[in-house]
Amino acid sequence: MKLYDFARAPNPRRVRIFLAEKGITVPTEQVDLGAMEQKSAAYTAVNPLQRVPALLLDDGSVITESIAICRYFEALNPEPALFGVGPLEQAVVEMWTRRIEQNLFFPVSQVFRHLHPAMKEMEIPQIAAWGEANRPRVAAFLPILERQLESGPFVCGARYSVADITALVAIDFMKPAKLAAPFEHTSIAKWHAQVSARPSAHA
Amino acid sequence: MKLYDFARAPNPRRVRIFLAEKGITVPTEQVDLGAMEQKSAAYTAVNPLQRVPALLLDDGSVITESIAICRYFEALNPEPALFGVGPLEQAVVEMWTRRIEQNLFFPVSQVFRHLHPAMKEMEIPQIAAWGEANRPRVAAFLPILERQLESGPFVCGARYSVADITALVAIDFMKPAKLAAPFEHTSIAKWHAQVSARPSAHA
Repeated sequence: MKLYDFARAPNPRRVRIFLAEKGITVPTEQVDLGAMEQKSAAYTAVNPLQRVPALLLDDGSVITESIAICRYFEALNPEPALFGVGPLEQAVVEMWTRRIEQNLFFPVSQVFRHLHPAMKEMEIPQIAAWGEANRPRVAAFLPILERQLESGPFVCGARYSVADITALVAIDFMKPAKLAAPFEHTSIAKWHAQVSARPSAHA
Repeated sequence: MKLYDFARAPNPRRVRIFLAEKGITVPTEQVDLGAMEQKSAAYTAVNPLQRVPALLLDDGSVITESIAICRYFEALNPEPALFGVGPLEQAVVEMWTRRIEQNLFFPVSQVFRHLHPAMKEMEIPQIAAWGEANRPRVAAFLPILERQLESGPFVCGARYSVADITALVAIDFMKPAKLAAPFEHTSIAKWHAQVSARPSAHA
């Protein structure tokens, strides 16, 4: 088994944090996105979509998509549960993971990809107006996340979950996107300090 | 229990097809997106993100996000399995659902939302250049889906799954987006005819 990883990219970080929370170690191979290694023929054979992470299994199967990789490990190693326990909590974890992906992680990524000069060769065409259109989307979602975290301690209540991992990675991705950290939202700030203090945050 | 639905919107259709495949009937209430009912105070109290579908449970809990709603019903009614069986197949269903969402359903939606005159009041700002940038993304993903369907009969192999539902809804959404149906891809065409012939496709 091998995890194709890139230390600086946000999506592989979701998988690394997840594995650290599970106490699972997987050999990794770096795919240097800075050098466009994800576009190589060798890596395209692993993932035709040319993105990291990807998990190569011993039988040659490949699983891509961070959350699909995480679910695979959740099924093999159910404890601690990071996708919730029982029908309702599992649905709530899925709901918040997707809300955070679509309304925070994705718009932050679009600000980064469409406005950052370093992304000019990666995001073709870079469309500044689309990058700008995503700033208010980030701003609109943060109060919804703040309200949810008021009853904390975690995004989905008492149990740390993959929704927290996704929110942590998305908020930390605001820095390279040159968006101010949203710590005027006091529940987000408190939660962020807590989840960042877990050893997994450094995986 | 009540499902907030809108007959013409693609995401609620995913849930309706899923429920039909499970043989589950849920009372629905239409939220008229044409009349902007999703922005009303009453509906915002149900889903602060102002989107359909949403599932209201008898205890007052609300689950939003199509796939979260589907997972809730999968957990309560495991048969027929629409999210796969066993760790690897479940991961593969998650992977293909997300690949199709991100590389087909989402770019098709962006062509629709940013280029269709009817969306001018809904998508603010409409950015034609962003709509156009999504056309080649759709075109780039279709051969990847075609290759996957060559070994069919379904997206994830022998078993019909939520990945088929997502692909069907995404491809049918190409019509209002004024994108040509991708039936020059013969495996996609054959698969599309098969899944469209299931009674669930009309749910």
